[in-house]
Amino acid sequence: MTIYNFSAGPAVLPQEVLKKAQAEFLDYANSGMSVMELSHRSKEFDDIIKDAESLLRDLMAIPDNYKVIFLQGGGSLQFSMLPLNLAQGKKAYYVVAGSWGKKAYTEAVKLSKTIDFEPILLASSEETVYDHIPDFDASAIDPDAAYVHLTTNNTIEGTSVYDLPDTNGVPIVADMSSNILAVRYNVEDFGLIYAGAQKNIGPAGVTIVIVREDLLNDEPVLSSMLDYRIQAEAGSLYNTPPTFGIYMAKLVFEHVKALGGVDKMEEINREKSGLLYDYIEASDFYTSPVKNAKDRSVANIPFVTPSKELDAQFVKEADALGFKNIKGHRSVGGMRASLYNAFPRQGVLDLIDFMKKFEAENK
Amino acid sequence: MTIYNFSAGPAVLPQEVLKKAQAEFLDYANSGMSVMELSHRSKEFDDIIKDAESLLRDLMAIPDNYKVIFLQGGGSLQFSMLPLNLAQGKKAYYVVAGSWGKKAYTEAVKLSKTIDFEPILLASSEETVYDHIPDFDASAIDPDAAYVHLTTNNTIEGTSVYDLPDTNGVPIVADMSSNILAVRYNVEDFGLIYAGAQKNIGPAGVTIVIVREDLLNDEPVLSSMLDYRIQAEAGSLYNTPPTFGIYMAKLVFEHVKALGGVDKMEEINREKSGLLYDYIEASDFYTSPVKNAKDRSVANIPFVTPSKELDAQFVKEADALGFKNIKGHRSVGGMRASLYNAFPRQGVLDLIDFMKKFEAENK
Repeated sequence: MTIYNFSAGPAVLPQEVLKKAQAEFLDYANSGMSVMELSHRSKEFDDIIKDAESLLRDLMAIPDNYKVIFLQGGGSLQFSMLPLNLAQGKKAYYVVAGSWGKKAYTEAVKLSKTIDFEPILLASSEETVYDHIPDFDASAIDPDAAYVHLTTNNTIEGTSVYDLPDTNGVPIVADMSSNILAVRYNVEDFGLIYAGAQKNIGPAGVTIVIVREDLLNDEPVLSSMLDYRIQAEAGSLYNTPPTFGIYMAKLVFEHVKALGGVDKMEEINREKSGLLYDYIEASDFYTSPVKNAKDRSVANIPFVTPSKELDAQFVKEADALGFKNIKGHRSVGGMRASLYNAFPRQGVLDLIDFMKKFEAENK
Repeated sequence: MTIYNFSAGPAVLPQEVLKKAQAEFLDYANSGMSVMELSHRSKEFDDIIKDAESLLRDLMAIPDNYKVIFLQGGGSLQFSMLPLNLAQGKKAYYVVAGSWGKKAYTEAVKLSKTIDFEPILLASSEETVYDHIPDFDASAIDPDAAYVHLTTNNTIEGTSVYDLPDTNGVPIVADMSSNILAVRYNVEDFGLIYAGAQKNIGPAGVTIVIVREDLLNDEPVLSSMLDYRIQAEAGSLYNTPPTFGIYMAKLVFEHVKALGGVDKMEEINREKSGLLYDYIEASDFYTSPVKNAKDRSVANIPFVTPSKELDAQFVKEADALGFKNIKGHRSVGGMRASLYNAFPRQGVLDLIDFMKKFEAENK
């Protein structure tokens, strides 16, 4: 049975990358050691982390005045590091279009009880269960604010921001965890981008931060580990980084480059997700909870049948046929097909075939 | 050429463990997925993390009233999390017997500029380049203090604390990164133990925290990711944990258990390191910078030749013969043989042979 892994993260990785890592698992580049056994101060690992950075700079066209940092703790730790480093003594705005954006805002509020800054909820679509990307009036933004935070892709709700909003000149800071390298963004449109690796980049445990140099904190923050400037100036080697995860990220970057880069990935992803969206739209059995077609994510595609009972039955039958992890997030229910870069087109076709069959049997 | 990896961390891992991980790298337990591709909410990963915890509890005889948490950020992030969670409004004492203990204290001082607590330097051997474990007068300790922090094994300087000091009833909190599972400690003698995985447990990117329940913070701290209680109550699944690293840790725990557990590892480690210590002691060419034999680490064994030039020559010749990463830390120079659990006895014998030859040629 072919297994298709629709997991929202940790997620499917390219088979070629896994095979390469497996082949050199015991002996990396004739070092006689596994990548995991390499000192993070060794020449071998130095090459790995420098290559990883250089490949990512190439793939995303990251300008020289941006630092690239490999950290730990996932997007969730960035929810606190971000205001700690960028917003002290300032306002910081949050556009909340999904559960993760809400968490980013909630953590900012928590932090603001100890650290002097003012998190402001600029817009939210929570009332309609995040079924769209909310609008806001740019003139309401204080131009001296530290940033406007948004989530480029809402993993749980299946919406994306493709056209960045007017923020009255205030830098946009984005959680790009679930569509980094999947669609093209212009890095220069952001003050800072962060992303957990476990969707489009590699295994869980690596976090990428891309930050414009002039936004780096001037003063040390409360912990060296949480200090962007210290981490950036140490070249992500302030302490022992997650070496194997960074190595896997490097392999994925090489793979994406060989496939044609981010523009090519976006083309593939739009076609791949388009197949599923078209089918859902044509069906009067399945529906998408996303209100506006323009907000649709190419990475995470939620859908529901006419009832919760049928949703549960769908998930059960799908699982038995090898369509794994297609259950929607517990907060929204239904189904969710996460079609990250490494997810094969054939899996979408096979899923649609199953959906047709399920519809015919249960309509 | 046989490669012996003397790296202080990331370090040598058991070959059997690496081979097992390699064999199931593409397809874990017939799931059709790599461990890296498993959702952290999947049954498969849930079994992995529960097994890892259960094995560690067994190996270290961790009592039920201690929580075991798998975190990210290494020991370095614990330097801040520890006082943030345990010491607010209180005093916290530091015994500084090495560079890492100094960092723990320095980060505590940094944090205390923002967070209300009082870090106190109880004792330090910095003046003599940490050549011994410093003593202190227990009666000087305020019994209401949050903790006394110490480092059980000083990775850079090669000293260890085996007999825990009298702390006037105040809980001992320990960085056990470089000798966890290498020698037996009684967990009940500690309020909290933390350790980065990359020496005796697995790949870099996993941090173990073992904390007595009654010491958990009552109030939320400034970030959910930095909050022991939140992490403990979520079973280390507050956000996506470093899944592959935890899986590797589980394999290492199984391996250590199969070898006979921590007492057996200690026996092996004492014999293994004893070979090298005995040789250094018998030699009038090599010397150990450690002042008192009772403080000697079984995990990290620094030594020097009569001159810096000969040290450099030693490292160069050793490297060419496959004795890798034997250079001492830049802060102390000389050589350092890190003999963690997975380091083979034969490597020690071969090193001693080389040392004899080098001595004969350069005396």
